[in-house]
Amino acid sequence: MGHVSSRLAELGIILPPAPAPVASYIPAKRTGNLVFVSGQLPMRDGKLMATGTVPGAVDLETAQRCARQCVLNGLAAAVGVVGDVDRIVSVVRVGGFVAADPGFTDHPKVINGASEVLQEIFGEAGRHARAAVGAVGLPLDACVEVELMLEVAD
Amino acid sequence: MGHVSSRLAELGIILPPAPAPVASYIPAKRTGNLVFVSGQLPMRDGKLMATGTVPGAVDLETAQRCARQCVLNGLAAAVGVVGDVDRIVSVVRVGGFVAADPGFTDHPKVINGASEVLQEIFGEAGRHARAAVGAVGLPLDACVEVELMLEVAD
Amino acid sequence: MGHVSSRLAELGIILPPAPAPVASYIPAKRTGNLVFVSGQLPMRDGKLMATGTVPGAVDLETAQRCARQCVLNGLAAAVGVVGDVDRIVSVVRVGGFVAADPGFTDHPKVINGASEVLQEIFGEAGRHARAAVGAVGLPLDACVEVELMLEVAD
Repeated sequence: MGHVSSRLAELGIILPPAPAPVASYIPAKRTGNLVFVSGQLPMRDGKLMATGTVPGAVDLETAQRCARQCVLNGLAAAVGVVGDVDRIVSVVRVGGFVAADPGFTDHPKVINGASEVLQEIFGEAGRHARAAVGAVGLPLDACVEVELMLEVAD
Repeated sequence: MGHVSSRLAELGIILPPAPAPVASYIPAKRTGNLVFVSGQLPMRDGKLMATGTVPGAVDLETAQRCARQCVLNGLAAAVGVVGDVDRIVSVVRVGGFVAADPGFTDHPKVINGASEVLQEIFGEAGRHARAAVGAVGLPLDACVEVELMLEVAD
Repeated sequence: MGHVSSRLAELGIILPPAPAPVASYIPAKRTGNLVFVSGQLPMRDGKLMATGTVPGAVDLETAQRCARQCVLNGLAAAVGVVGDVDRIVSVVRVGGFVAADPGFTDHPKVINGASEVLQEIFGEAGRHARAAVGAVGLPLDACVEVELMLEVAD
């Protein structure tokens, strides 16, 4: 068992199944040693964990857990492309969009739910550049969407 | 005639002229084998196809056509950098921003207008990672903005 | 003194100190010859230059100056990773988010504050692909957030 898969086991994290490609876009695409993961929604067991804007309809803590789930879904998407989670060597960038009410300013705290689980899993290599912003709304009324850029081994 | 240009001809798609560089940013920039195309607006024949937010001012179908036009403009921008559409070998990522009213959640359907034309033109290589989100507003009051990341041949 | 540092001196621009890494994400991350700089806020001397949405709470000219400051902070972040501003050879992409009131459509003018200082510093190599969009809100109530993708020498 490789380093990342060992660490997932230690953390008790089981990645969801790699998602099937949808229509004209795909869950993740590789170019060279980079994998770009599509914007992930907080789907778990086939449905969204929370819908609506933060904080009016979704509280901060729930939104953080949603951001964490987006990352797990995104890693699953990457595995669908590279075949093995242990081939992921570094997290380069996280893009985090929070469906937010006007006046909400704690986007970083929400997206920390994504960043922290990446550091838990990948350690120092999981630390990444990041942009966190407010969106007036998100697909399917999700409260958060997270995209990933990963570096993979040859 | 190369594969992509043949396919464009089959589809009856004529790319617009490559846009002139504007001010301090440019329509597209290459680094290595990647070309980053600036966020494109649905300009056609020198003016926006639709303005305002979706769905209040712009209906879904119109917004989809606008997203498709953004892609054609983006491919033209890429051609301006790489010289020939046939040098584009893969579409890596699409970033789609929809100027949306609060409560709108069909961003994916809008951006499908972009994704589908890329698949029509490039086939399997046109399938890409994607993020689709809602923006409170967009430049010039455009209803949609699409940026592209493309892989090009050496 | 290298080309970029000479040019900074000519322009009278002193980059701020490289920011310390924060928590689970970092100010900038390198992969290959690319450096991804995290979304920067218009911090100067430890506080935001302006807060709130454009144009209701922050006027256009102030927002432009804020976008410029984001770039200086972003270059400082890149220096923290690559060690020397003269190793930056090209600006590939700028992502600009403007905290905007509904109906605001001059996002490009705001983000020109970022693009123009990059061209002043790097000349032709500073011209970049760009996306500029409206955000319903931004971290810490900042009026603008700018992320950078830079190409660096080996």
